[in-house]
Amino acid sequence: MSKIELNGNGPEVTLTPFLKTLVQQIRAQDSYGFYRNWSDELILKPYLVTKQKKREISVEGEVDPATISRINAFFRAIAASIEQETGLISNVVVNIGHEGFGWALVFSGRLLLCVKTLRDAHRFGFDSLQKLSEEGENFVNKGVDLAQRFPEVGKI
Amino acid sequence: MSKIELNGNGPEVTLTPFLKTLVQQIRAQDSYGFYRNWSDELILKPYLVTKQKKREISVEGEVDPATISRINAFFRAIAASIEQETGLISNVVVNIGHEGFGWALVFSGRLLLCVKTLRDAHRFGFDSLQKLSEEGENFVNKGVDLAQRFPEVGKI
Repeated sequence: MSKIELNGNGPEVTLTPFLKTLVQQIRAQDSYGFYRNWSDELILKPYLVTKQKKREISVEGEVDPATISRINAFFRAIAASIEQETGLISNVVVNIGHEGFGWALVFSGRLLLCVKTLRDAHRFGFDSLQKLSEEGENFVNKGVDLAQRFPEVGKI
Repeated sequence: MSKIELNGNGPEVTLTPFLKTLVQQIRAQDSYGFYRNWSDELILKPYLVTKQKKREISVEGEVDPATISRINAFFRAIAASIEQETGLISNVVVNIGHEGFGWALVFSGRLLLCVKTLRDAHRFGFDSLQKLSEEGENFVNKGVDLAQRFPEVGKI
């Protein structure tokens, strides 16, 4: 079973369902087998960006393609988690401009299951895996709630 | 009153409400006054791309920024036209990848008023102003219909 250390000082914990889905999304895109021998923990590590680290990342110019990939995988994991609970298959559109401003959208039919405005996308990251998991789960829960409230819009 | 020649061989006609809105959108973004002395007809002319012309436009590499601006203005005009009829204020997200594939989305609250997948965006254009107007109006009508059917989703 996958184990992680939260913040390097907490107890070892099992990966949450959202984090497992996120790892699956990243492995699914790993056409060249780059991550094949990596642990789940190592794959998720780039999502951890401390406040100190964020200050060091410039928000000038283009967002690093690796950061954009991480943002994409995060929202694809939200879409996949919503699908697991509702059966709704959704599209993910992430649009980031040169200044790190943009949108991340997850939708099914005519229903937006997740809407997030992005700012300073260069610095996308979380204090801890727990925070990463909580933020993902919050989006999933809201999306599932909307899908259940407005099934006729999600299935158009 | 604005007059246009359709296809260069039809009778002169007044600009449709959609085309007027489109011109307004373009003029509104014209911070440097580049188009100030241009007629409406001249402003819309780059939207006319014949089949012959399309074949001549390469779909390799990045989409021309001027073409992306035209796509943006087209969907902003759809958003503005829907707003005129429903009062719903919406966001426009256009996301075009390096290969000219992408999405154009217009949404209000959690309701997608307009969804369009883009292919070969390099060649975005219409046979005639009439076609341009009809396509825009189709999107507007569908969006207005959705807004009226699902007002509680559009106003979330």
